This record gives sequence, structure tokens and C-alpha cells, in this order.
Amino acid sequence: MVKTTLDPALLKPLDEPSLDRMGYERPRALLDATDEDLASLLDLVNRPVVSARQFDKAQLVQLCRVAARYETKRQNVSQPLTGRILVSAFYEPSTRTRLSFESAWHRLGGDMMSITDPSSTGIAKGESLFDVGEMLNAYGDLVVLRDSHESHVYEMMKALRIPIVNAGNGLDEHPTQAMADIYALLKWQPELAMSAPGCRVHIGVIGVPARMRTVRSLLIMLAQFAAGIAKVTVITDADAPFSEGQLAELLAAGLKVEVTDALDAVLPELDAVYINAIAWTGEGKGYEELGVRYRLSADSPLKPDAIVLHPLARGAELDVSLDDTPHNWYFAQARGAVFIRMALLSAILKTFS
Amino acid sequence: MVKTTLDPALLKPLDEPSLDRMGYERPRALLDATDEDLASLLDLVNRPVVSARQFDKAQLVQLCRVAARYETKRQNVSQPLTGRILVSAFYEPSTRTRLSFESAWHRLGGDMMSITDPSSTGIAKGESLFDVGEMLNAYGDLVVLRDSHESHVYEMMKALRIPIVNAGNGLDEHPTQAMADIYALLKWQPELAMSAPGCRVHIGVIGVPARMRTVRSLLIMLAQFAAGIAKVTVITDADAPFSEGQLAELLAAGLKVEVTDALDAVLPELDAVYINAIAWTGEGKGYEELGVRYRLSADSPLKPDAIVLHPLARGAELDVSLDDTPHNWYFAQARGAVFIRMALLSAILKTFS
Amino acid sequence: MVKTTLDPALLKPLDEPSLDRMGYERPRALLDATDEDLASLLDLVNRPVVSARQFDKAQLVQLCRVAARYETKRQNVSQPLTGRILVSAFYEPSTRTRLSFESAWHRLGGDMMSITDPSSTGIAKGESLFDVGEMLNAYGDLVVLRDSHESHVYEMMKALRIPIVNAGNGLDEHPTQAMADIYALLKWQPELAMSAPGCRVHIGVIGVPARMRTVRSLLIMLAQFAAGIAKVTVITDADAPFSEGQLAELLAAGLKVEVTDALDAVLPELDAVYINAIAWTGEGKGYEELGVRYRLSADSPLKPDAIVLHPLARGAELDVSLDDTPHNWYFAQARGAVFIRMALLSAILKTFS
Repeated sequence: MVKTTLDPALLKPLDEPSLDRMGYERPRALLDATDEDLASLLDLVNRPVVSARQFDKAQLVQLCRVAARYETKRQNVSQPLTGRILVSAFYEPSTRTRLSFESAWHRLGGDMMSITDPSSTGIAKGESLFDVGEMLNAYGDLVVLRDSHESHVYEMMKALRIPIVNAGNGLDEHPTQAMADIYALLKWQPELAMSAPGCRVHIGVIGVPARMRTVRSLLIMLAQFAAGIAKVTVITDADAPFSEGQLAELLAAGLKVEVTDALDAVLPELDAVYINAIAWTGEGKGYEELGVRYRLSADSPLKPDAIVLHPLARGAELDVSLDDTPHNWYFAQARGAVFIRMALLSAILKTFS
Repeated sequence: MVKTTLDPALLKPLDEPSLDRMGYERPRALLDATDEDLASLLDLVNRPVVSARQFDKAQLVQLCRVAARYETKRQNVSQPLTGRILVSAFYEPSTRTRLSFESAWHRLGGDMMSITDPSSTGIAKGESLFDVGEMLNAYGDLVVLRDSHESHVYEMMKALRIPIVNAGNGLDEHPTQAMADIYALLKWQPELAMSAPGCRVHIGVIGVPARMRTVRSLLIMLAQFAAGIAKVTVITDADAPFSEGQLAELLAAGLKVEVTDALDAVLPELDAVYINAIAWTGEGKGYEELGVRYRLSADSPLKPDAIVLHPLARGAELDVSLDDTPHNWYFAQARGAVFIRMALLSAILKTFS
Repeated sequence: MVKTTLDPALLKPLDEPSLDRMGYERPRALLDATDEDLASLLDLVNRPVVSARQFDKAQLVQLCRVAARYETKRQNVSQPLTGRILVSAFYEPSTRTRLSFESAWHRLGGDMMSITDPSSTGIAKGESLFDVGEMLNAYGDLVVLRDSHESHVYEMMKALRIPIVNAGNGLDEHPTQAMADIYALLKWQPELAMSAPGCRVHIGVIGVPARMRTVRSLLIMLAQFAAGIAKVTVITDADAPFSEGQLAELLAAGLKVEVTDALDAVLPELDAVYINAIAWTGEGKGYEELGVRYRLSADSPLKPDAIVLHPLARGAELDVSLDDTPHNWYFAQARGAVFIRMALLSAILKTFS
């Protein structure tokens, strides 16, 4: 069965990159609601980024502001990373995160080299992360590493004299994904960024903090915004939703955290809902799906103005019926992932000004 | 057995990129024979390119003229795509087409990111083409997609707000390969481009229009030049050379089409012979070889000045004994593939002037 | 077991790219000790590079000088390869060599396209190297080829009108790795570069010249510096350490060569020790480990100021206990591999000045 006709509607000229349905005007709102303070980013210059714990509220807000400035510009105005080389090392397969980093780097004018699964690199198979890191000092200017072993980013870091950014280390953390989540939240509710916030939002997190690196990093960063968050409700049917010490750390940081397994009961109370069903199981063993009984769709009892976030790629847990509703902030969140990474890379390499 | 001596002849300094044996001076001839009318390309700005049906004769001629201008320049003079990002998505393996697009993009100054077989992208395995497209809106400026499923380019297009170019969709079409074929034909016979052509060439197509996307797209484009084509003879031993409606469409467009299974009988009458033996079978099932009993070599009863075209890579159907004969236009055709893609990409992104 | 704390020492800001422990100041010493004579590099312009035999002493010294100039610059000052395209064809897996070439090319401002294992390129599987080369003439400006078949680089070269650089061809040669070795040696002992050298160093090579392409190319280049080398001792337990004619060629070139299987007996006499345990077995059959009973560690009876070189990646033969000793020149050697390749690519494309 081969097409012999063309649907002309599909082939109409595209508009100038159109205003997206959701969230496009929000970077402007964030810029208007907050003050510039780039000095708070100086601590990030030439630093490795491995954990959400490295960032305080001021830094996160300023990174989001820089991202918003990039997002509100239609064209790149400069190429500050001309001649600089990113080493894009995705030892664990990834498309979104990898493309997002590579796009951010290219948008800033830089070049790129990639390393993929070490099992495909023959002799290098058994090479230590330290030796790889030592090599990369000479070959690149910044390393982005995804690896299914929690410890590898730390091992490579011992050899590195150039910055490294953790793009997901096994079960542990995924700090730049959490930054993209925070950026989406701040665009939605700029008041969260203020020192005396007028908002007290209720955030739901459908997922397993003990097992999902995206959720782990997100909760750590949310704690920085505890003053504006009435409560975080974790929705899960896991027997042990938290790893040892994890909940205590969040509570100590001032975040109010509750746990429930009843999604539909709590959904009508939530202002923002984050959902994820994938947990990387670490050590090269791939991923598992968790909480698959929780699903969001256009029929879910969401508040009319509640937003839905998802790190994508999605499975059945996030129904496409939500795509054309105002709840859909996950596409805006995905788009923002490029800009927040541009902001972070700019800060580390001190190309902002 | 390890070499211990060097053949000095192999290591002599290369000449300045030499005049190729075949076709190098032809771009100049095409430029001389035709008039510039870039306005006809404005319809291509910011448009997806999925089918050979989207192009009329004027557009094809002007694209070939832009290509000829690129081909006659020894050095790139500008980098209009600086800071723009190509997403090179080859879900079906390819080397020539991929490198040709990537080279074209780089020659115009752009950067690039690649996505390969989705089966290697772990979690993204089950992601919809729509979701991938939505992601790419933020990450790139143009998508080139090769996919063994006919429908995928259309599915992705529904989400895209940036242009996409079809680099081969299953059994269906391969419009940019057909453009490279047309470019080779116009360099050979610029009269084909004229409104009142003085030529009436007889073109042979060894292949199966029903099953070969390259042939499908080529025939559609040849129909635009029907006024200058005395006849197209399809040489095949297939029981059903055409898919439903395919022949009727070509005839309705004014192309005279005949079919034969007797290659050597018709060969002495042909001015140009296109040969291909590969058909992509679609839906990830790889390719099949068709018409393998048809072969061209230096011993074939070709007209003395007949040209031979082939989309390459070749198999046994195109003998290397033809390489050093004046019939060899397939190398010039392959070289031109970069320049015609530069022209197309320039038109879509409106960087020509 | 998921980390919940961060070691602050790991996250301290990185220093400005620090002086490396070993060898960083040495490029300066090489520049001071030798005279510039770029005219000797003119013979390399637009030439293929396949064998160590193509280079004489003057060219090697000048390439090392250009490399030293790059290495002593902290920032790239120009982008002479803007708009030029490298085709990075690694048909045999590699990480270090590939990244080293790609980094060198990017540092010079160029763009890049890659081809990997032809078995992954579907239809191109059976394509001849000649046809691939013909294609690359149009698509790129320079080809770097690694291939496990000795003959492939020569086959592709027959079609190429752009330069090719051999990045390892089966058992045969790996000339640019040998250049990196020579560069390390000249940084260590600039006197080797002089016409009337005051030094007579004793170099040990742990490896099998008959079977290791890195060693094959290195010995050929060392012969150019025979005047400054008291002796090369090959340490091996192989029955046939040399291939036919190999030793005779080296002796004829004036190099004094001895062979022993007693590492610890000769080690106290060596000024520089090169060690490698990997031999590519050619024709796609992967690699074998040779001489695994030879190992170097901090406990080896090395001269106090002896240096150790290794092409990396390493196996058990090079113990990490050497990393923090002054014997460690292999990291400096690896770093220099980028700069010597920049020098070579600059020479071929005549971008030096």
C-alpha cells in the first residue's frame, strides 16, 4: 500500500515558529517578576555538576532567568563557545537528554564529539573511568556523562581538570532534568522565585523517590523553594517509597512531604502534578516501570488550572488526550530543557554577561 | 602478510581538486542555458518536503541552478546556517544519503545532531513519532528523516513546527534523490529545462516503479519535463511493474511511458539510462534485489554518447568497466547530490539571495 | 545503595587548567631548542598519509614544533578550517584515536561527519572502498580511516582526490600514533631533534614489532633519529619478533636494535621505555594480547629519570602505581596526540603560516 496522493494540509507552509499553545509567554513573566543577580552564578564557574544538592535557591532562580532570556530571543545573537568542544558521553542510551545538551551546546556556538556505549569501543572496553577522564582533559572543554553506574561520574571526576555535568547516574540523580522541571514551575508560578512568596502551591509527585533519579533530584531542588510550597504529596504504591535518610533530608530542609497511594483522592487538590513511571535500575540493567496503575488523562479529576509535568519520554501513564488541554505543560517543560541547559553551560564556562 | 614497501605513485601530492572526468564543466552550461528566477523558490520557504509531487518544473530548474552555482564555486563564501541545527534522523541505515545531507548542511555553516535506529535508544523505543517531533521543535531547526515506514514522516510532521525533509520513507518516495537525478540530467542536457525544448530524449529506467522509491520519485519529477522527453522506457521483468494508479498518474501528466523486459533490444535507442536494483521493502524488513538479470557494462550496446545514471551504492548491475567511459555520469550525479541538497536546504531556510 | 551525601572536595571549583604533573613545560623547551623551518612541511601539502616511511627527520621535527606551538597556547586564536569537513571513518572501533582526530579538527575550526562499522550501514555493506572514496571526494575535505584490513586505505586512496590519513590499518601501520610518540620523546629530550645531538639515549620497546602496528610505525620513525639513539632494545618473548625484512630495514636505516626477553635485566639501563600489549590481528578479527608477562609498575627497576610511554588504553601491563611518579609520560603523550594531529592536519591542508 503506497501513498499516491498528498494531503495538501500537511504541506502548507509552516508559520513562523508559532506561539506554542502552552507556556510560551511565560519566560517573559518570569523575567518581569524577578531581579537579575548574575553574581550568584559565579560559584558555578568551572565547577562540576553532579548533584541537585549543589544549588541554592538564588542560583536556581538566576539560571532560570538566563534560560528565560534565551527562550525569549528568537535568534541566537552570539556564539560564545566557538572553538570549544563538548564531549557527549552517553554510556547509557538516551535521546532526549543527549539531544537537549547537544542542542544547547550548539546554540552557544560550540562543537561536539560523542562517545557511546563503551562495549562498542573495542579495546577501550576495560578502560577505567579515570583513564578516560585523563584523556578527555586534553580532548574537550566539558564532559556530559550519562552512565548507569552511580559511581562512574565520581570516578571520572577524579581525573578531570575540565568540568563534568551529570546527565543521569544510575539510580542516583539527574540534576539537569530537575532544573528543567524547576524552570517549568517558575515559568508557571514566578512567585515561587520570590523571597516572600504570595503563593503556597500543592505539588503532587507520582513516582517513587527511592528508585527514580529524576524524582530524587527534583525533590532536593523543590526543598529550596519550600517557602512557597504548601505541601508535596508523593503518590505511590511502593512499599518503600524513600531510600534511607531521603525523607529526613527533605523534611529537615523545610519541605512538607506526605505520601498516599490514592491518586484520584488527592488529584483535585493539586496545583501541579509531576508524573513519571520509569526507574533506571542501575548498573547497566536497564529500566523498570513503577506505579503503572497511575494514569493521567483528560478525564482525570484535575483542578481546572492545574498543570501536568512529565520528564518524557512517556508511556501509558500520560495519556495523549491531555496534549490539547491547558494542563499540558510537559511540552513547554521539554522545550525549556534546552534553554536551562544553555544557562547552566553558560554559567560553568562563564560565557554569560 | 604485512606491507613493507610503499608505492610512491600512490603517495604523490594530490592535484588541486581536479576536473572530474565527467560532468564537471556542466554546471556552467546549465547556468548559461537558463535564466535565474529565484522567486519561484519562495513557495518552498519553511515548507516540509516529503514528495516529488510538491515540485513543479520551474522550481526544479531553479533548484538545479542554485546547485550549479554552488558546484561552480571552489570555496564556500558564506556560512548562512551558522548556529542552525540539523537533526539528522536516520532510523533506517544509510551512508550516502546521510553524508550527503550532513555535508550540504555543514557546507552552509550549520551544526548537526544525529538520531539513529530507535531500537538503540532504550526508553525512547516506544515513543511516538508525534512526541519525537514535538521534542525536535525545540532542539533543532530542520529535520531530515529516513524511516522504513511510509507513514512515519507524515506522523512526525503533525507535531513539527520546523521543516522536515523526507530522505526516504519505506517503499514510498525519496524526493531528494530524484532531485539529484534531475540535476544530473539538466547538467547533461540543459535544453530539458527550457520552455520550448529543442530536445526529445529517450530515457530508460531499469527498475521497478512499484517497488523502488527512488524510481517512484524520479518518474514523478520526469513528468514535469515531459515536453522534452520523447519517451520513458521502463525495463523490468516484474509481473506488476506499477502500483495502482501510478502509471495513470504519469500518463495524465503527459509522460510517454513504455515497458519492456528486453534490455539489449532497447539499449541502442536510449539517450540516458537510469539503473537501480535495490528496493526497500518497508516496515523495517530491509531491502530486496530486483531485476538482477539486467546489467550494464562497457560491453553493453549503449549509444556512444548515452549517459548512465545510478543512485548508488551499486551492486553487480553496474559494472566497474563503465567507470572510465564517457557513459559514467553516476559519479557526477553522486557529487551533485550534495549541491542539490544545499540548494534545497537554502530554499527551505531562505538563505539564498 | 544510593548516595545521599556529597564529598565537597570533589565539587570544589576546578582550577584554571592546571599545569600537568608531567611534561607541560616541555613544549616550550622543544621550541627553544629547535629552529623553525616550515618549508620542510610543504611536501606534506595535499598528500595522503599512510605510512611512517613518508616522513623524514626534518618533517617530524617541524611537525612537533607546530604541535608545541599549539600546546603552549591556552586558547585557539583562529579557526582556519571553518567550513571544511572531516570524514571520520572508523570501520574498526576506536575511541582515543577517533576523539583525538576529531578534537584536533574541531580545534582548527572544522566540521565533521562520521562513518562507523560498514556492517551497520545496510546496503553499503558490500560497497567497494573505491566507490566509498569516490563519494567522499564530493562530501568532505579530508578522510581519516581506521580499518582492520591493511589494504583498505590503499584501495580507497585510488579513488580519492582529497587527502586521507591512515589511523591504523590492520597489522600494518599507525603513523599518527607514532608521531605522538615521537612528539613525547622530543619534548622529553629536545636534543634528539638536533643535527649533532649531544644525547645517546637507550630506548626500550616492550612489544612485538611483527604484530603491533603502533610499534611498527614507531620503529620506522625512530630510525630517523638514529644519530641520537644509542640503542633500541626490543623486549619480547615472541618466537618471531620481526616480520620479513623489518629488522633489516631498521638496521639499514642506521638504528641499532637488540632483542631480549629479560625485562628486569635491561630495565635499569633504559632512558625511555615504551610498552604496549595489544596487537590488532587484522581482517576484522579483533585484537590479541601479547607479552602479558611484562609489566611495569612503581616497583619496576627503572632509572630514576627514565620515562614511560604507552599508546593507551592500557591493560594490566601498565600499573596505575606509576601514574603519580615522574616516570609517567604516557599522560603527556596522550595529551600531545591532539596537538601533533593538529600539526599534521594543518600541514596537509596548508593552514599553518
